[in-house]
Amino acid sequence: MNTDKKKPTLLIALGGNALIQKGQEGTIEQQFENLRISIRQIASLVNDYKIIITHGNGPQVGNLMLQQESCDEVPKLPLEILVAQTQGQIGYMIESVLDESLMEQTSDFNPLVSLITYVAVDENDPAFVNPTKPIGPFFTAAETEKLDYPTMETPNGFRRVVASPKPVTIIEKREIQRLIDDGFIVICCGGGGIPVVRNGRAFNGVDAVIDKDLVSALLATEINADLFVIATDVEGVLTDFNTPNQKLISQMRLDEAEEFLSSNKTGKGSMGPKVEAAFKFVQDTGKRAVITSIESICDSVNGKAGTQIIQ
Amino acid sequence: MNTDKKKPTLLIALGGNALIQKGQEGTIEQQFENLRISIRQIASLVNDYKIIITHGNGPQVGNLMLQQESCDEVPKLPLEILVAQTQGQIGYMIESVLDESLMEQTSDFNPLVSLITYVAVDENDPAFVNPTKPIGPFFTAAETEKLDYPTMETPNGFRRVVASPKPVTIIEKREIQRLIDDGFIVICCGGGGIPVVRNGRAFNGVDAVIDKDLVSALLATEINADLFVIATDVEGVLTDFNTPNQKLISQMRLDEAEEFLSSNKTGKGSMGPKVEAAFKFVQDTGKRAVITSIESICDSVNGKAGTQIIQ
Repeated sequence: MNTDKKKPTLLIALGGNALIQKGQEGTIEQQFENLRISIRQIASLVNDYKIIITHGNGPQVGNLMLQQESCDEVPKLPLEILVAQTQGQIGYMIESVLDESLMEQTSDFNPLVSLITYVAVDENDPAFVNPTKPIGPFFTAAETEKLDYPTMETPNGFRRVVASPKPVTIIEKREIQRLIDDGFIVICCGGGGIPVVRNGRAFNGVDAVIDKDLVSALLATEINADLFVIATDVEGVLTDFNTPNQKLISQMRLDEAEEFLSSNKTGKGSMGPKVEAAFKFVQDTGKRAVITSIESICDSVNGKAGTQIIQ
Repeated sequence: MNTDKKKPTLLIALGGNALIQKGQEGTIEQQFENLRISIRQIASLVNDYKIIITHGNGPQVGNLMLQQESCDEVPKLPLEILVAQTQGQIGYMIESVLDESLMEQTSDFNPLVSLITYVAVDENDPAFVNPTKPIGPFFTAAETEKLDYPTMETPNGFRRVVASPKPVTIIEKREIQRLIDDGFIVICCGGGGIPVVRNGRAFNGVDAVIDKDLVSALLATEINADLFVIATDVEGVLTDFNTPNQKLISQMRLDEAEEFLSSNKTGKGSMGPKVEAAFKFVQDTGKRAVITSIESICDSVNGKAGTQIIQ
């Protein structure tokens, strides 16, 4: 076990495809098998880095919402509780696969914990006035009349719509900092964290989802990470996406990332928040961020894959 | 913040009524409100004890099973994943209520984490040959034919039946020990822990539930706890239960507890595993255990309530 406190800190944000790949039904066996692709690479990095893993929860929280809508026999749970449930589920899955991968390498590995994490948002965030994030199952127009939450029309039907406010701070950041300084590998901030707003001395859960890449960038900044990796289903930021001229942008300076964000060259919504998250981390810390594929996490850490975002 | 390493270690196992009380539907508001009863008392103990909190998950995991049965649109999840989901849910709820209760007392309190926890069981445990633990929703005889798991007939209908093997070891015990030694308050082992069996270098989840009081006793032993409190819906071990002569047994020596277990004086199944768990802890460690009500946690710690089990 290497407890060198001077090791650099690496935060890796795993995208949804780390668990369920495109076109898959998403059985639990598929999710475990897929996880091994990213987790084995992460296991090979533990001797050189202090490691924090965050992850998405889109399909998993959507499934819980659908199951909840299908059953009138038990009390409905608010969204933040469903997010908490997915933190339990995915936290366990990542931890057990990482445990297995570490045991393949050494019998004396760093301690490992999956933490429940909640994240404060501002109740005055404009996102609450105008919710824009569609989540969960699809409904017909008639079905939406029975629902007690707002919906929006999408190409495939109506969906529940919730706010996606900016993360303000990770409540457990002090704990996470102490844990990594003490040699722990930490899995946390699942699904963007459980969203809460401050109410006097308490934090109350709210119906919202926080973008997991933005939360990961904030955590990376709050705990002084040296490198922030966003792992997703493409090899990095691409020009001319989905055309014969598609090409990886292997490096972006901050001004180039800023120009990318203002022009939105991808024509795809999914890359925008990732570049924004990477941009914020690099701008706030002067350190390096990478957007890469699940298959190339190690190579991207070593500067040989993905889109490297630097000052 | 008091980080005195010499403080005694206190493990408190919260029963299901800490979240849902008898006759309640179990809305999320009720669960949060109920939690304040036990958690405020626990908050008042943090200056004098290192604290670990464990908890049950019976109604919560039953609800997830019922929702899953009601919905054919998403892949079914195995039982250990549902247990993991309840660890996320209840871990978040306990942590946020404890956070609030601690803030009412001081602005400089100990760090606090909710951990995903899995617990090894023996694949050759006789419980797997003859599953006896009914869980989840009720079915008619006809409905059971569509199910792909064993069921048993109960007074209110057929229910899924799973094994309830003995816990062998808590996989995260080393992490939990380090955390409490370092001043953390730790919430863990929810629902008896996620049951796993060793398979080469990996641990695989199994369809089973582990008794949460037995897991709590094992954890209390493994991390050298000084006091083990089981908080439930009665004031302690009672003689002549549910009769006019009902009376609290305020103290039991080990030989009396052993005699109680062999004669099963309560006539109620629910007290047996609690006395067994307390007995095992006291026998293995020579320390003190208490079985008490949720309302009397503090008094029982101070020896003024509950059934004190001593050598």
